[in-house]
Amino acid sequence: MSSVDNQTRIEPATLEDLPMLIDLTMDLFRMEEDFEPDHFRQEEGLRLILEQPNRGRIFVLRTDYKIVAMVNLLFTISTAMGGFVILLEDLVVHPDHRGQSYGTQLMEYVLDFAKKKDFKRITLLTDKISAESQRFFLRFGFDYSHMIPMRLTFAP
Amino acid sequence: MSSVDNQTRIEPATLEDLPMLIDLTMDLFRMEEDFEPDHFRQEEGLRLILEQPNRGRIFVLRTDYKIVAMVNLLFTISTAMGGFVILLEDLVVHPDHRGQSYGTQLMEYVLDFAKKKDFKRITLLTDKISAESQRFFLRFGFDYSHMIPMRLTFAP
Repeated sequence: MSSVDNQTRIEPATLEDLPMLIDLTMDLFRMEEDFEPDHFRQEEGLRLILEQPNRGRIFVLRTDYKIVAMVNLLFTISTAMGGFVILLEDLVVHPDHRGQSYGTQLMEYVLDFAKKKDFKRITLLTDKISAESQRFFLRFGFDYSHMIPMRLTFAP
Repeated sequence: MSSVDNQTRIEPATLEDLPMLIDLTMDLFRMEEDFEPDHFRQEEGLRLILEQPNRGRIFVLRTDYKIVAMVNLLFTISTAMGGFVILLEDLVVHPDHRGQSYGTQLMEYVLDFAKKKDFKRITLLTDKISAESQRFFLRFGFDYSHMIPMRLTFAP
């Protein structure tokens, strides 16, 4: 682990960040049981979100020259909650900078953003999150649901 | 159970259908462990979807004067799949018309719609689906994922 200077800031990612975001998400999918990293797919998905801010927002914690952590928020509608809700995906801290509470800083920013914008709920859809990840999210008030996720993937 | 005539058709719901859609979703949430039926919330959520077709589509199987079944598709983006994906929620068959394969007809319509529109995946986010529901979805090719869903709900 290496430390970054104190001049970190959190802001929405832009298209210029795409190469670094692809690297971070590919790292994440390499660790997840349900997914394979795929440069083309990660680029397509990230680009769609960056180009359509009404569908979601990618926030990054960065220095002037490096992205230290990212999180991907997708905006959708809940008939149960009666309003807009967030799907939180792709929370990744760069491997060189883990254990330094950058993930916590980013999550606090996300919760503040969600409350200010009147989102009704945040759901985590990340696959196969570890016990450590679960403890992380429990600390922010997340709770387990009774949902049983099922998926149908269409062949390319 | 009562039967409806053969003149059923599947089409997108409109704002005029709102009262019947509210009744159907409230029925559903009454059966689900994680949710309470709430007329105001269901109306708000359904209205938002009907008013913003780029965010989702509610399909209904109907006769001239009655909605027999509904399903709610929400459109979002996946960085794993590299494109648009569907969240399938609120699949409900009217209590008077269960066991007559209306759910199957609606699901076949959804799968056809998803493939034609090049969606990459469908994920079910319905809470606490029963063993019978799971068998229903398995029959269409859905599979269990390793996702562990967690949620943070904001107080009103």
